[in-house]
Amino acid sequence: MNNPDFSVPGFRASAIAAGLKKDGSPDLALFYSEKEAVTAGVFTRNQVKAAPVLLCMEHLKTGTARAVIANAGNANACTGREGLANARLTAELTAGELGIQPQEVLVGSTGVIGAQLDMGLFRKAVPGLVKKLSPDGIPSAAEAIMTTDSFPKLSRFEGEAGGVPYRVVGVAKGAGMIMPDMATMLCFILTDIRMDPARLKRALSSAVRTTFNRITVDGDTSTNDTVLVLANGKAGNGPLQDKDDEMFQNGLHQVMNELAVMIVKDGEGATKVVYLTVKGAVSEKDAESAARTVANSSLVKTAFYGQDPNWGRIMGALGRSGITMEEEAVSIWIDDVPIVRGGLGLGAGDERKAAERMKKEAFSLTIDLQQGEHAYRMTTCDLTHEYVSINAEYRT
Amino acid sequence: MNNPDFSVPGFRASAIAAGLKKDGSPDLALFYSEKEAVTAGVFTRNQVKAAPVLLCMEHLKTGTARAVIANAGNANACTGREGLANARLTAELTAGELGIQPQEVLVGSTGVIGAQLDMGLFRKAVPGLVKKLSPDGIPSAAEAIMTTDSFPKLSRFEGEAGGVPYRVVGVAKGAGMIMPDMATMLCFILTDIRMDPARLKRALSSAVRTTFNRITVDGDTSTNDTVLVLANGKAGNGPLQDKDDEMFQNGLHQVMNELAVMIVKDGEGATKVVYLTVKGAVSEKDAESAARTVANSSLVKTAFYGQDPNWGRIMGALGRSGITMEEEAVSIWIDDVPIVRGGLGLGAGDERKAAERMKKEAFSLTIDLQQGEHAYRMTTCDLTHEYVSINAEYRT
Repeated sequence: MNNPDFSVPGFRASAIAAGLKKDGSPDLALFYSEKEAVTAGVFTRNQVKAAPVLLCMEHLKTGTARAVIANAGNANACTGREGLANARLTAELTAGELGIQPQEVLVGSTGVIGAQLDMGLFRKAVPGLVKKLSPDGIPSAAEAIMTTDSFPKLSRFEGEAGGVPYRVVGVAKGAGMIMPDMATMLCFILTDIRMDPARLKRALSSAVRTTFNRITVDGDTSTNDTVLVLANGKAGNGPLQDKDDEMFQNGLHQVMNELAVMIVKDGEGATKVVYLTVKGAVSEKDAESAARTVANSSLVKTAFYGQDPNWGRIMGALGRSGITMEEEAVSIWIDDVPIVRGGLGLGAGDERKAAERMKKEAFSLTIDLQQGEHAYRMTTCDLTHEYVSINAEYRT
Repeated sequence: MNNPDFSVPGFRASAIAAGLKKDGSPDLALFYSEKEAVTAGVFTRNQVKAAPVLLCMEHLKTGTARAVIANAGNANACTGREGLANARLTAELTAGELGIQPQEVLVGSTGVIGAQLDMGLFRKAVPGLVKKLSPDGIPSAAEAIMTTDSFPKLSRFEGEAGGVPYRVVGVAKGAGMIMPDMATMLCFILTDIRMDPARLKRALSSAVRTTFNRITVDGDTSTNDTVLVLANGKAGNGPLQDKDDEMFQNGLHQVMNELAVMIVKDGEGATKVVYLTVKGAVSEKDAESAARTVANSSLVKTAFYGQDPNWGRIMGALGRSGITMEEEAVSIWIDDVPIVRGGLGLGAGDERKAAERMKKEAFSLTIDLQQGEHAYRMTTCDLTHEYVSINAEYRT
């Protein structure tokens, strides 16, 4: 595989080992836009919001930004006033070195909760980080924000607006504490399209709803989840026509969806990606409740791991999800193999076939409630020994 | 330890290997009351109810029963009309052999979902099962209803009503698929107290609410959960005075609580029992939401397993539980050791002390939200490698 080009005109990025990760690998990343970028953000709906999230929400009131600095190794969450002051200081140090305003700097953090940042490490690292900024720096920045991730997550899209070409490049980190609202802890998207703030915000919200908010690893929602999109306008396109807007929407969705699926694939300990569809629900709310209950059931997820089409556990999860359902109307498929019809199992032959499908790294699970017209799609993974190992040993 | 006496005047029980469990161990249990017993039941609130649950609900309309037959190895759930007919046939076979009416027989099943019962095995086993009935048979019946349980669960209480002594003996099976509503798959309680049906029903509902509905192993609710209490009146006490009623309530609560904690202790793969209290909530609903979210968080439960007072994960769970809270008001303790005050960690010294407490097989976790006067208690366990092993390999 040749290396795809993850650069975006007008953006530079860099990474450095600041000493926040104990193993000495890169842990501080910087994304910089040569000119002011129209910026939109979506943040965790967890009531316990990390300091960098609070700071981003404050700085984003202007609707523009120039830089994003993000560290791994420490989430700067549950750190009180000192934590917020440290996030602010991070922005100030970065702004000072770049010669821009602190309000133009956004901050992201991921890692252990409840410990204060060692600001001495930032003071030492930021000058070098700024010096290393390069148009080719995005992949190394994507590596620096990894925590328990096993691979860096990058995705790109090339579009054109009014005949003018532009790029969308996204980087993300995920792995654990992944669920309902905002599945990635950190996702940064850079694009050189020219776009007005309201449209960008709409595009981001819409894409988050159908990508990051549709994945689950373990049902836990982080305190730090952040998705930022910076559009620097360097492409120089004119005002967007409807079809340009649609192309950008699709591109943004594609980039974020690819990153979201990578996050599930790289879910802590995950060995299977499962594309779940619940259809035939009386409302979208019902379809979503059913999908989330099935996608987060420990019993269903261990059955995925065991490659066992144990549909009884799926029925059990549906039954406790609080939806309108009739047991005797439910049909279930693994990929193209029906395993339940009319609420009853279709026997050992079909289950054997389904078990074969479940040996793959990815398969689909489709549930038809046959109560109405509404559907909901989610991406989930299995629950494995490795998930327990990672999370029982994370801090110790 | 000498063997406590688990007999109850007027009741007999037995167990037999009918061939439903693949390993040939006892899998069919019978509880029989020599005279008609006032009976109350509480069943799963899962919308997908197993055939034996539907049959019990139907037979319990009379408010009395004479026998309970329960099998392990097959849950007779998601089995449609054939499953219900088989549950009915089970009651008929048992009634025929005992010389009572089928409506006087209650049925319980636990095991794999979605497979039809082999009624030939029942036809063959029931006569022998009835022949083996004995006043000392309750412990062996408790063993026969085990599935992934690692030990049989029995509890007893001796009380008196108006100076007349009586006993309450309960047996239960649990282990997996354990959560919100009705934590045990099967629990049978026998007592020789004389009691009117309305009072018994009230006593049972009240005890279930504060015992079985307050435990969680994995957040999944079974299709088969059943708690039955049979009061045969053999003690011959007169009408209950308030203090007698109170003693019975306490006794029933004690027996059910003991069984509920045994179920958590024997949660699939569990190595720790955690007594969780959330207090200072603005409403009981909030206290319950917070407790259930913390008690079911995979990240919190793996931290229990890792003996890691990782309070950041607890804060994260509280933050996504949808309750009224202020991060900076939260205090958290492990046993008597404070680890969070004012939303902030109390440092490595206290965490080390807390980690010591977490090495025990049981410890408490107390969360004070400091928003109001309401509290909620639950019992939960850790999430371990063994849980994954059991559930990834259960059917295969």
